Amino acid sequence: MAEETAIRKDENVVYIGKKSVMAYVLAVITQFNNGAAEVGIKARGKVISRAVDVAEIVRNRFMPDAKLKGIVIKTEELTSEDGTKAKVSAIEITLAK
Amino acid sequence: MAEETAIRKDENVVYIGKKSVMAYVLAVITQFNNGAAEVGIKARGKVISRAVDVAEIVRNRFMPDAKLKGIVIKTEELTSEDGTKAKVSAIEITLAK
Repeated sequence: MAEETAIRKDENVVYIGKKSVMAYVLAVITQFNNGAAEVGIKARGKVISRAVDVAEIVRNRFMPDAKLKGIVIKTEELTSEDGTKAKVSAIEITLAK
Repeated sequence: MAEETAIRKDENVVYIGKKSVMAYVLAVITQFNNGAAEVGIKARGKVISRAVDVAEIVRNRFMPDAKLKGIVIKTEELTSEDGTKAKVSAIEITLAK
């Protein structure tokens, strides 16, 4: 799974942040409409649950034919401005047309 | 993936709630120590990110040989006391010894 997602172009990734779920749903659908064969939904920390919401809403409400190609979870290390490091969980959900 | 997890006994499931991450990490490790070949980590809604934390901490810090057997995401419908229904995303992460 990791290898498959690694070769995908970065432009086909939607990074989940603090916007509304529907903003990211729209971003995913837009990427598919622009010709992407697959779209990665990436999130770190507390917004991981929002990434799952986005994937589920895209599949259940807008693109019933979209396939859940893979889900990867991992731990990333962040370095803050003062140099301290913190580990944070991350997820990448890949949808394919 | 869904079929594999469906036949697993319910007792080998850790449901993520509002306790600390380490409480659930301990619950997972305890189930493995009691003989479980695999343990499911289930969460709904905002605590989905905590389920990912639990799986990552178990694998990275306590059981480096544990395998990530599968990750399933889905949408569940909850009915509240007044009868209104709400959809909520859910995740199940299965770890195997």
